Amino acid sequence: MNIRLIVLGISAAACYAQPRPPSLKSPEVGADRRVTFRISAPKAADVRITGDLVASPAAMEKDGKGVWTLTLGPLDPDLYSYRFTVDGVPVVDPSNQAKPGTMLDVRGAGAAPYDLRAVPHGTVEERWYESKTLDLSRRVFIYTPPGYQKSNARYPVLYLLHGAGGDESGWVESGRVNLVLDNLMADGKLKPLLVVMPYGYAYPPMDPKASGADAMKRQRSGFERDLIDDVLPFVQANYRVYADREHRAIAGLSLGGAQALGTGLTHLDLFSRVAGFSPALGAVSSEEAGGLNFASTVADTKKVNAQLKLLWVGCGTEDTLYKSVESFSSMLQSSGVKSTWRSTSGAHTWLVWRKYLAEVAPLLFG
Amino acid sequence: MNIRLIVLGISAAACYAQPRPPSLKSPEVGADRRVTFRISAPKAADVRITGDLVASPAAMEKDGKGVWTLTLGPLDPDLYSYRFTVDGVPVVDPSNQAKPGTMLDVRGAGAAPYDLRAVPHGTVEERWYESKTLDLSRRVFIYTPPGYQKSNARYPVLYLLHGAGGDESGWVESGRVNLVLDNLMADGKLKPLLVVMPYGYAYPPMDPKASGADAMKRQRSGFERDLIDDVLPFVQANYRVYADREHRAIAGLSLGGAQALGTGLTHLDLFSRVAGFSPALGAVSSEEAGGLNFASTVADTKKVNAQLKLLWVGCGTEDTLYKSVESFSSMLQSSGVKSTWRSTSGAHTWLVWRKYLAEVAPLLFG
Repeated sequence: MNIRLIVLGISAAACYAQPRPPSLKSPEVGADRRVTFRISAPKAADVRITGDLVASPAAMEKDGKGVWTLTLGPLDPDLYSYRFTVDGVPVVDPSNQAKPGTMLDVRGAGAAPYDLRAVPHGTVEERWYESKTLDLSRRVFIYTPPGYQKSNARYPVLYLLHGAGGDESGWVESGRVNLVLDNLMADGKLKPLLVVMPYGYAYPPMDPKASGADAMKRQRSGFERDLIDDVLPFVQANYRVYADREHRAIAGLSLGGAQALGTGLTHLDLFSRVAGFSPALGAVSSEEAGGLNFASTVADTKKVNAQLKLLWVGCGTEDTLYKSVESFSSMLQSSGVKSTWRSTSGAHTWLVWRKYLAEVAPLLFG
Repeated sequence: MNIRLIVLGISAAACYAQPRPPSLKSPEVGADRRVTFRISAPKAADVRITGDLVASPAAMEKDGKGVWTLTLGPLDPDLYSYRFTVDGVPVVDPSNQAKPGTMLDVRGAGAAPYDLRAVPHGTVEERWYESKTLDLSRRVFIYTPPGYQKSNARYPVLYLLHGAGGDESGWVESGRVNLVLDNLMADGKLKPLLVVMPYGYAYPPMDPKASGADAMKRQRSGFERDLIDDVLPFVQANYRVYADREHRAIAGLSLGGAQALGTGLTHLDLFSRVAGFSPALGAVSSEEAGGLNFASTVADTKKVNAQLKLLWVGCGTEDTLYKSVESFSSMLQSSGVKSTWRSTSGAHTWLVWRKYLAEVAPLLFG
């Protein structure tokens, strides 16, 4: 008996049955880069857009059919993140077909630094390691550059940290670190390197027990010990990376920016390049400062300058952290610590951090 | 000048500033595995829970403060997915701290097959390849087993397909394929293999131009050509996998189950093991069937039985597809095609597919 008829019983029509396409088009990007958002919520009294395309929640308008609409722009070409709030409840745009569904890609005339282009691509690896420090199996994301698998070479490595509320996937999902670096390498602007993206919390951040000054100390020291005693040895043992400080950098955004500066500047035996993107430095009470002991291993300015091959700090002028970051950089300058201070446009968003990554990565290892 | 005071300016308090912890606890899992869900929506008139923990949307109840509550269970220990609908608008539980925030992990007494345990872990790689078929850069997820990087051995490979509306990340994010296989290997129940998870659509599924019979044909043939002409050669060229049909399997769920059966059974020169999990077989019109030409390369039953080392079909009795899958399996049986038919409890959900994966993986390569 021939199997033909049986196999024909498999229906492509059924195979490709879709979740029903959304009846609304949202977001709709016009040729003029004006963007219209739509959501059906007939019973709602107040619907707003929040995210990095509006400075504050922007009210939408309801039509006779209960569809709420707002047109913004023209928006600069970039990758935005947004949500709705429907009577105060946060809602991901049900009509947005992007992945994740919170993203909006406004195209410009040319290719963007974070575009998927037909160039050689690196690999993003999700790895699990045993953290002796935390007595946990932990996930870490590792980017290896194009050609890594078929090479025998060793590479320099950047430890890249996420912000508060994020996790080890953030720099890939929102930052598109792999595509940004693929493109820089394809354009001859960056030599191959690895990027290691660990989880920035020692303990679950939302745990009520994890708040208060003591818990913060445990978070900070737990993170740093995990990074140095567990993540670093795991990377050295499992990847072809150089083992010396000259080929090791640390950078991060927001919380991760403060961690990169705090851990980097106090561990110059491990890191030679340090960068803080919109670092969440803040003000510190003397009690906390005493307890934190950030600087216990730091040598004098002259030695620091000799050791540090790059100290880079940047912040957007619309960022609420701007003044504190600017003060920190002024302190560095006035104390004679060699550093680069970049004051740019932008707020506390991924639009800024993707740009900083593209700017800083080529500076790291020359 | 000593840098100590400068670095001390970095505040752990600010570093670890969190997004405000949610004021509501949701979901709250009791010791008796009863689960309480809560969401604040004071202005809403109707709030429901949807997902694989309810057979149909379940209404929640509002208290005097506008908090909606529902307690379900006791629930069987498993990994569930759910959302709220607030006056018809889909909402991810704002208080859920899981990642993704749609997940609910109801713990049992022992370890679950999908748990993160302190065992040797494989790697999940996100790779990009150039699809000549589709003239696109495409992403594919690839699981390599523990020890792969430090071995020189070759491995068998399973091509594993997602369902309608999903993508190449689905088997990792919802299926936890890596943890399921790590655990089976650690328990001595599975020999190491690679798993390749491509994207199941040739063209964006929600594109209105992608509907209709012609578009479905293009989807199906585009997917199959991309898989065979682009993904397979990419894997063979970049991973230490065997190159013969004896070491190659194909399986999938729902849409991907139909694709695995359709592509697998018509390409026995490439695959020796084929499995469909709750495959979306459906009914096919004669016109479509003629055009689809699924079976053009299929040989007779005797030859098929000699070539196929495993043909496995399973479906849950609460699945709306159950009857069609059962009929298909009956057809296989009555026509003399050797196959395994598994009728299990469960609906069209990841609860079923994670179990099928754990059951089928050890059967593939003995």
